[in-house]
Amino acid sequence: MTTTHQPLSPLNWTGSQLELLDQRQLPERIEYLHLDTPEEVWEAIRSLAVRGAPAIGIAAAYGVVLGSAKAVHAGTNAWLEAVKRHAGYLATSRPTAVNLFWALDRMTARAEALAASGAPAESCQEALVREAEAIHAEDIETNRLIGEHALTLLADGMGVLTHCNAGGLATAKYGTALAPFYLAAERGIKLRVFADETRPVLQGARLTAFELHQAGIDVTLICDNMAAAVMRAGWVQAVIVGTDRVAANGDVANKIGTYGVAVLAKAHGIPFYVACPLSTIDLNTPTGAEIPIEERPAEEITEGFGRRTAPRGVRVYNPAFDVTPAEYVDAIITERGIVRPPYDVNLRALFETK
Amino acid sequence: MTTTHQPLSPLNWTGSQLELLDQRQLPERIEYLHLDTPEEVWEAIRSLAVRGAPAIGIAAAYGVVLGSAKAVHAGTNAWLEAVKRHAGYLATSRPTAVNLFWALDRMTARAEALAASGAPAESCQEALVREAEAIHAEDIETNRLIGEHALTLLADGMGVLTHCNAGGLATAKYGTALAPFYLAAERGIKLRVFADETRPVLQGARLTAFELHQAGIDVTLICDNMAAAVMRAGWVQAVIVGTDRVAANGDVANKIGTYGVAVLAKAHGIPFYVACPLSTIDLNTPTGAEIPIEERPAEEITEGFGRRTAPRGVRVYNPAFDVTPAEYVDAIITERGIVRPPYDVNLRALFETK
Repeated sequence: MTTTHQPLSPLNWTGSQLELLDQRQLPERIEYLHLDTPEEVWEAIRSLAVRGAPAIGIAAAYGVVLGSAKAVHAGTNAWLEAVKRHAGYLATSRPTAVNLFWALDRMTARAEALAASGAPAESCQEALVREAEAIHAEDIETNRLIGEHALTLLADGMGVLTHCNAGGLATAKYGTALAPFYLAAERGIKLRVFADETRPVLQGARLTAFELHQAGIDVTLICDNMAAAVMRAGWVQAVIVGTDRVAANGDVANKIGTYGVAVLAKAHGIPFYVACPLSTIDLNTPTGAEIPIEERPAEEITEGFGRRTAPRGVRVYNPAFDVTPAEYVDAIITERGIVRPPYDVNLRALFETK
Repeated sequence: MTTTHQPLSPLNWTGSQLELLDQRQLPERIEYLHLDTPEEVWEAIRSLAVRGAPAIGIAAAYGVVLGSAKAVHAGTNAWLEAVKRHAGYLATSRPTAVNLFWALDRMTARAEALAASGAPAESCQEALVREAEAIHAEDIETNRLIGEHALTLLADGMGVLTHCNAGGLATAKYGTALAPFYLAAERGIKLRVFADETRPVLQGARLTAFELHQAGIDVTLICDNMAAAVMRAGWVQAVIVGTDRVAANGDVANKIGTYGVAVLAKAHGIPFYVACPLSTIDLNTPTGAEIPIEERPAEEITEGFGRRTAPRGVRVYNPAFDVTPAEYVDAIITERGIVRPPYDVNLRALFETK
């Protein structure tokens, strides 16, 4: 076990190659894929070697420059065509990853501007690599800022419970909900993290417990149904989770089980915090009621451990997400600061202050 | 799938043989063991083919008569010695099952009284078989009465959530918390049952969902962390669980996760009921604080079903039980009626009324 207190990096750019942590092998093996072509990046995204919206977007951006590098010799026009072709191709790797399309659009727009400037293809390519690196670096900075703000809500010796994985593995570094834990460890602030295993897909056990443990951070794995007992024991002073979407009124959609944790936190007088970048706050979604809840296959529950654990044919309800009403959310922590109720006013103000 | 609305019987006495449902094969296969000797019964108890305190006690009682049957030809004294020897032997099958010792003591005491009466060994043996059958029948009657009382708290069309397995498989028939579901089904009262899968050992998935499904009862399996979302959706009008021990003040020890369900029920205005026989209420335990909470091996969580799902070496907290404070318990349902707060007075009165 390392004691770096640093998250394991899900992806590294060597200057000519993308090193990608193969998350399909976790938690049993730490193996990096060495990717030289857009096709390899496409396959890595499709097959879930890399996951988490920000990490996928960054991987795709590097996938574009791996492809366009081979067109530099053919001149600027051919180079631009190569960028567009590879971006269009990489966009087909996952159907619904918003950050993927956002990153590829940004790369294509930058390439068009570079080509229009009349610069030679070599210069365009160098500048486009810097664009991918900028996307990568900006995500690290966003998460670091989220972590800094979150850390102001915590204190040495606290127990903090988290659900699912909003961690470094899903982003360029640090993650969102897990960011304060890495920053605290860097600074010698002692926190005790409780990680819900997060049935049915066990992201808390397989990813959160894994990434914090490998970084030498004090983490205790529990089953989801143990959170209440841990709270009652007095071991938890704050809850921090990530989110898939925040509505304009402060309702929060996140992995199934989050709402239950929020209700338990309130019952025990424990503050419940949500950490996310501004890009996750959707002012066009008025309330949580407008957020569709995906239902997933029964087999995730009935045979999730490689063995059948429930009777064949039994009815199963398997929602992937739930909505935590704003009244349970004590604060939303973003890269631009901490937002408190009333969220309908204060979330809008957050976007207008810059 | 059958539509008998009857629980699958965990054990049947044929008159000369004990048929025992092999619960190790559930939920994949329904297979009965055919046991002819105390040694086979001992092995079945030890290896968890039969489980649940009442069911173990009944199986052991039949184990005694299987052994003493072979001593009938040798006269009453030898017969009594055989009863005592087999009872002592069967008591070593599981170390902490209170019902096991209770049933064996009752069988031995009955055998002593029979032998003292001077009856021939054949008559003693016949009467001892009837004692085992009485233990069996009394458990069915206790559970049926619990079910009758519980049913007065429910109404057609209700959704009812349960946690872990307090079902027919753990008892002679009906179970405790599941008893009202069988009685309702017999009478055409429609209830919709939600079964928490109950990590880490999944008794809810493997046993509760199994036994209700095979009886044709409307059951929906959910992960523990989905209970809150199901309550918020308005699908649950009552929660019923079993218990391992009720303290004199009404605090209830039960499978880990029960306390969280109770807190969630209160937050959603849903009544929370506990079903148990009087024998589970321990007036010598003043409060839940005096009930020791067993911690179980980490491997139940990290590699529970043949697959490692958490990083090696990670810290794990795995309590087997939690305590639900009496303030969360709307009623305790026994074979002698329904008890409501204040429990310190009313539980004591329950024992004194008969």
